Amino acid sequence: MGVLDLDRLWSGDRRSIARAISQVENEAPASAELLRAVFVRTGRAHRIGITGPPGAGKSTITSKLAAHYRAAGKRIGIIAVDPTSPFSGGALLGDRVRMTDVDLDDQVFIRSMASRGSLGGLSRRTMEAVDILDAAGNDIVLMETVGVGQSELDIAGAADTTVVALVPESGDSIQAMKAGLMEIADVFVLNKADRAGADQAVMAIQMILNFRKHDGWMPDVLKTVASDGTGIDLLAVKIDEHRAYLERSGGLRLKRRSRIEGRVRDLIAARLRVDFWTADRQALLEQRLDDLLALAVSPAQVADELVTDFHRVHDDRG
Amino acid sequence: MGVLDLDRLWSGDRRSIARAISQVENEAPASAELLRAVFVRTGRAHRIGITGPPGAGKSTITSKLAAHYRAAGKRIGIIAVDPTSPFSGGALLGDRVRMTDVDLDDQVFIRSMASRGSLGGLSRRTMEAVDILDAAGNDIVLMETVGVGQSELDIAGAADTTVVALVPESGDSIQAMKAGLMEIADVFVLNKADRAGADQAVMAIQMILNFRKHDGWMPDVLKTVASDGTGIDLLAVKIDEHRAYLERSGGLRLKRRSRIEGRVRDLIAARLRVDFWTADRQALLEQRLDDLLALAVSPAQVADELVTDFHRVHDDRG
Repeated sequence: MGVLDLDRLWSGDRRSIARAISQVENEAPASAELLRAVFVRTGRAHRIGITGPPGAGKSTITSKLAAHYRAAGKRIGIIAVDPTSPFSGGALLGDRVRMTDVDLDDQVFIRSMASRGSLGGLSRRTMEAVDILDAAGNDIVLMETVGVGQSELDIAGAADTTVVALVPESGDSIQAMKAGLMEIADVFVLNKADRAGADQAVMAIQMILNFRKHDGWMPDVLKTVASDGTGIDLLAVKIDEHRAYLERSGGLRLKRRSRIEGRVRDLIAARLRVDFWTADRQALLEQRLDDLLALAVSPAQVADELVTDFHRVHDDRG
Repeated sequence: MGVLDLDRLWSGDRRSIARAISQVENEAPASAELLRAVFVRTGRAHRIGITGPPGAGKSTITSKLAAHYRAAGKRIGIIAVDPTSPFSGGALLGDRVRMTDVDLDDQVFIRSMASRGSLGGLSRRTMEAVDILDAAGNDIVLMETVGVGQSELDIAGAADTTVVALVPESGDSIQAMKAGLMEIADVFVLNKADRAGADQAVMAIQMILNFRKHDGWMPDVLKTVASDGTGIDLLAVKIDEHRAYLERSGGLRLKRRSRIEGRVRDLIAARLRVDFWTADRQALLEQRLDDLLALAVSPAQVADELVTDFHRVHDDRG
């Protein structure tokens, strides 16, 4: 993998970024040290999430937005958050290829990451990759959900500003409301707005928005045709306005606080899991599974036994 | 809530079932005792999951299948697994109403439950409600995902037999494959098969299936028009065949084993979370969050501190 030059990483060198993310993904021995150094350099980048149902044009919006920021002289990184099949266990190659297909200049760093963390929300590795892009001096980190389901909502927890993309097709806004997307949007994009039904869709979204509580920020509903770039400039303006609002209102600090708290809790749960599931306790569970299958004992009873054993072993060490 | 008569529960009395599920949902003092008594009476019901993308007609398939089983003299319970918005925090009233709308006779017990557990998969409460329906003497428990996203895959972990419903609309099978639905299906239903493109959709699914590994059971792709009942009888036959296959092959025991193992692990994680997050340690995290926001320390360092404190306190007790 080669040695990682931290100074080159802080200066935004793309190969160093790629190497750093790989170290974190592979949990290389040096990755704990690296993450500590990275974390204390975070906090500069604007973290923008792009989410919405499949077919809303999220990838196109992301690449056009990236091109817009590049033209404005900003440094930008992209994380494509993949729905990882629990069975195949990997990101979907098709989408990965599709992202790199996009006509961005080669200064934009793009990386695909698996979506789900053990406690819900984005996976720890994904959050750490965003930290790396932040610490490497990017002004903007775009997080885009790729493909289907699962991570649509999770991305809001990782972003400062969440853009929800919808299309005019009937019922889409209702589905989005049901899925909780209406509640996480800071900016709405009605993409493919050159299709029939666009104005009705915008009205439907606005109507649903009126039922939602607002604390000083009312999400706009912008029409875009991302494929030809229509509306992207205005979208960037709205995203900037939201960032300014967050800084003014103290909301940015609150978002960061809850994001960091979630990460600490996630790390602790992972540590406890490792501490708990020793080979001995694993073997004990295996034994008891036969009793469970024979219905001689209940899951709660076996959980009690194992937790009691955990505490006893701890006490004995004292 | 009134006192729960266990004998009436085992006999399948609907009010007793409703009361038992409520006790478990509300974590009533007696619920641990109840769950123990329930668990040792489980293992009889066939647990069938109905899943698929929004708009595939899952509710209609579920109600027609339930009517079919009723006509065959079977006892059946239904759990509608709701995608719970992390913000509204409740099941979606609209879908709940829709389910009870269905023209089932009043002997079929239907209940809506929130979908997500803390460690992914169906929520613990949902699994426990299924146990209650099983222990109450139902021959069949149908679990249906309602609405959008999230729980589409989770249901497979809770079911003996998983039915995936799709519709002829182009691209649906590709989306399903991406979302991992192809890998969890024991039986495919191409619903609304009177629409254009049905035969092509069936062929597309079969083609994708050929790329999947099979261990003795090859999922069929059945055409249904659930709204008028077409194909439901054959679906019931296939579901029965799958159950027979599971019993013959030992797969049922394996599925149960991994399901129960998951539940024990989930209970243990919940217990450890409670044991760990004392008021003192909560306060310690609050303090350190300011240092984290000031970038003076990293999440991993704070997690280390707290876990070390947890082990130290344990050791001191010994």
